Amino acid sequence: MGVWTVFQLHEAFGPTSHLVGDLPLCHVRLQDDARYPWLVLIPRGPELVEIEDLSPADRVRLVEETVMAGRAVHALGAVLGFEVAKLNIGALGNVTPQLHVHVVGRRPGDPAWPGPVWGHSAGQPHGDRAAERVLLARIQLGL
Amino acid sequence: MGVWTVFQLHEAFGPTSHLVGDLPLCHVRLQDDARYPWLVLIPRGPELVEIEDLSPADRVRLVEETVMAGRAVHALGAVLGFEVAKLNIGALGNVTPQLHVHVVGRRPGDPAWPGPVWGHSAGQPHGDRAAERVLLARIQLGL
Repeated sequence: MGVWTVFQLHEAFGPTSHLVGDLPLCHVRLQDDARYPWLVLIPRGPELVEIEDLSPADRVRLVEETVMAGRAVHALGAVLGFEVAKLNIGALGNVTPQLHVHVVGRRPGDPAWPGPVWGHSAGQPHGDRAAERVLLARIQLGL
Repeated sequence: MGVWTVFQLHEAFGPTSHLVGDLPLCHVRLQDDARYPWLVLIPRGPELVEIEDLSPADRVRLVEETVMAGRAVHALGAVLGFEVAKLNIGALGNVTPQLHVHVVGRRPGDPAWPGPVWGHSAGQPHGDRAAERVLLARIQLGL
């Protein structure tokens, strides 16, 4: 996490999400899909692919930031008009290998329920509401 | 984690997985699907649904046991004849709410690749190979 750490965001994240900000470990983005309250955490570090690539101390940060993101997702759900019934936490990376953790708020009757959201269908962009939702996420995350 | 902890395994796990054993935090099971090396970690505790329901200390245990399970999944993949290219870690719980973490070894060309395995298709049971694969998982996990 020092000044010599090289972090480069994979180009796949830009078109599919909005910048929220940086927590101590993770770069945080709002997935550009207004059908779900959905944050993506990308640990900042060079060449991270699997959770085991993180130091034990950073694994602790990752799980704590995942819990923080879950709380923010609940708040985002309220803004989107959804009561989050269950969080879905996933680190897949089959398509975009850079280590990232999805934190998605789910509810019965959402488009993919009860299946996973990943690969289900094209997102519905936040459009001109993105900025206020990013701001809400920042506030919830203490950024 | 004390003697007063009530842990009851949800009935959904029995028919879909084989008992592997208990790590300090998690009950571990082998998913009964020979198409993927796939372990399921179920933290032992009463009424756990979300990761935030664990104490911070148990969250640390969960992430460390997830890393251990990932190594075991790599070894299981070799036994199944697959080289694991990517781990998929997921805590969903839309169908079975009891907190559990899937640790799945994935490879290009596997049945669900690059989509998620959850909800993709019916499993292919381990059959009479289950016992030796459970044993391998136990050895890898130090059980």
